[in-house]
Amino acid sequence: MNPSLLSGLRIIEFSAFVAAPSAGLALAQLGAEVIRVDPRGGNIDIKRLPLNAEGRSLYWASLNRGKRSVELDVRSTEGRALLQQLICAPGDGPPVFLTNLAVDGELSYAALSKLRPELIMVQLSGSPDGSSAVDYTVNCAAGFPGITGSGQGGPVNHVLPAWDVTAGQMLALAVLAAERHWRLTGQGQHVELALSDVAMATVANLGYLADVELNGTQRSADGNFLYGAYGDSFECADGRHAMVVAITDRQWRALLRATGLHDALPAAAAALGMALDDEAARYSARGLISAALRPWFAARTLAQVSAAFTDRSLLWGPYRSFAQMLADDPRCSEANPMFRRTAHPDLGEFLTATSPLEFAAVERIAPGIAPRLGEHTREVLAEKLGLADAELRTLADAGTITPADAALGR
Amino acid sequence: MNPSLLSGLRIIEFSAFVAAPSAGLALAQLGAEVIRVDPRGGNIDIKRLPLNAEGRSLYWASLNRGKRSVELDVRSTEGRALLQQLICAPGDGPPVFLTNLAVDGELSYAALSKLRPELIMVQLSGSPDGSSAVDYTVNCAAGFPGITGSGQGGPVNHVLPAWDVTAGQMLALAVLAAERHWRLTGQGQHVELALSDVAMATVANLGYLADVELNGTQRSADGNFLYGAYGDSFECADGRHAMVVAITDRQWRALLRATGLHDALPAAAAALGMALDDEAARYSARGLISAALRPWFAARTLAQVSAAFTDRSLLWGPYRSFAQMLADDPRCSEANPMFRRTAHPDLGEFLTATSPLEFAAVERIAPGIAPRLGEHTREVLAEKLGLADAELRTLADAGTITPADAALGR
Repeated sequence: MNPSLLSGLRIIEFSAFVAAPSAGLALAQLGAEVIRVDPRGGNIDIKRLPLNAEGRSLYWASLNRGKRSVELDVRSTEGRALLQQLICAPGDGPPVFLTNLAVDGELSYAALSKLRPELIMVQLSGSPDGSSAVDYTVNCAAGFPGITGSGQGGPVNHVLPAWDVTAGQMLALAVLAAERHWRLTGQGQHVELALSDVAMATVANLGYLADVELNGTQRSADGNFLYGAYGDSFECADGRHAMVVAITDRQWRALLRATGLHDALPAAAAALGMALDDEAARYSARGLISAALRPWFAARTLAQVSAAFTDRSLLWGPYRSFAQMLADDPRCSEANPMFRRTAHPDLGEFLTATSPLEFAAVERIAPGIAPRLGEHTREVLAEKLGLADAELRTLADAGTITPADAALGR
Repeated sequence: MNPSLLSGLRIIEFSAFVAAPSAGLALAQLGAEVIRVDPRGGNIDIKRLPLNAEGRSLYWASLNRGKRSVELDVRSTEGRALLQQLICAPGDGPPVFLTNLAVDGELSYAALSKLRPELIMVQLSGSPDGSSAVDYTVNCAAGFPGITGSGQGGPVNHVLPAWDVTAGQMLALAVLAAERHWRLTGQGQHVELALSDVAMATVANLGYLADVELNGTQRSADGNFLYGAYGDSFECADGRHAMVVAITDRQWRALLRATGLHDALPAAAAALGMALDDEAARYSARGLISAALRPWFAARTLAQVSAAFTDRSLLWGPYRSFAQMLADDPRCSEANPMFRRTAHPDLGEFLTATSPLEFAAVERIAPGIAPRLGEHTREVLAEKLGLADAELRTLADAGTITPADAALGR
């Protein structure tokens, strides 16, 4: 087996919230060395929900696994100088600085690249015009809440921070693309990404801008119906719900067979002058199809639906809460090599994920645990900047770093 | 200026739907050479919505920009052999094969890597246990629909194909990570990704699995409220909606000032024994805050809200439909360097996006246009496999490729 996939790649992550930390996580999970730097007391996401009973953030402990944590007073001149040195410290490859914060002065690309011209700085902002934006304000601007749900009662935000999650992967991609460029040319560079661009590019990529411009129409709210082929959700006798999808003819025939509607539904469609022959026809007839299927689901518990849906051609699944997913879905268990139970010293043991990507040439890296805030401040400053104990004491006395005994108590 | 960022990287994409095509798109937008291969007549996504008036897919034309298109009868022995040769054709770097299809035989990793040991094959599947899954059936399994919307009336699917979009970026990341590994070791490899793992890893990364395991609780449906700090949506006098977010104290004070509630709301909170001092307190008091703000929005049109919200500290935004985004948001126009109007020969001119990532060391690549299905079959087979006109005619006569005059007619 090989050393880890991204060995030799070191990233200083100066971040908060979801996007940039998840980029650091994605790279750490593939073997990069990731050092997250926070201001003293933590950044704005240090207490982000969900929390455990003692008020520790389970979110922070999940998004920062496999990283080391350095805590610096980045408001002070000394703290900013240390962060600058850390970013520019020598290493095997070019220095990589990943941030979603509005850094300036000695932490700007101009200043840093003067010290290390091969620097790769990957920076996320809110909007390309410089205005602030977060996932919630990007989401409302980008059209999806208006077509989510029934369309009654106003827009519905999706709860998944989808733009942050997507941006995180794009930032990780940017790091590797820029490192490739450095490898081929020796050049560093500043890479910028705006969160609103992630959302608006996605709208364009799915054809929705073209739909508006060329057709003068747009996709509208349509409940849980699939878009363009047949699919819908159903309530079962026990109050559980199931999603059913039939895109291909094979999936469609399997659905008719499993629900006993192979004669009745085509007959009903014929009587109404509707076709069910291909996915476009079934999409047009989706109201009829759902009306025909609804009593079948309403008469059965989810377990009975599951027992009737054994044909592998059927594409369907139960709706699950997070708790039900953990309890009932074997894909969300240690039966799946992506998941491992790991014990966090302060939080206890829980199921944690490593990278969803499985590379055959290297061993999958275990999920790891998140550091305590500032756990590695001394270790990293000694290792990367060669600071001796006396120098670290001076920094602690000045308040630039946390006193040695305080760091482990949180 | 440099040649494009990913020059020398060639990808054969054998794909359908959103995830794999968007990975190819992301790489093409950074300068990789991407050749999409489809079965004759197109893959299952060739007629995906939205369509234009003539039934051409605006979705296909948006997700496949900047790629070349090869159309082969991949059900035939000859067609499969051609695809195999195309994947294994010599190039500057290792061959890269990107697919979300269940390929076997001569298109399996085992067969391909025998011919080209340095092959990088990046493959998306539904579930790691081999069962099929699409975005809709992954989504229902992964908990989010149950906490989207009001929580009344059953689960609400988010309409954005968020798992496909995220998986697309992960597949692109996998290509670059595997190419880096090849560059350092000379080794190729098979990289696998399951769509359900993308969703379930995200649930874990946000701390929701830990919440279930350690607290026995989980996030619940809460309308459009932000999670963990104050934020909510409001209806204005003209029926438009706005999203308002106040995470930091500065944003919170700006919101109170702009709405004239700087005295009244703290007084109301004090009377009820509620605090508004920090984001956690404001999250607890979110019902009160929204109740106090609602009449202010209801008395004003969106334009009046906008006129009152000039303080740059305010974090807010209007909800927009796709059409409103295109008409009203300057970030979704050619004022944004990510967007360019491009003319597709069959569809007309519309606003298209290139990569949201801006790399300072290279020029941003223009969005490009999507090929017609099979537009480059002959060109690519001649260029990569050295096939002469006579050989191409024989393939067309056998039906392995489309006759020369048919390709341009669609």
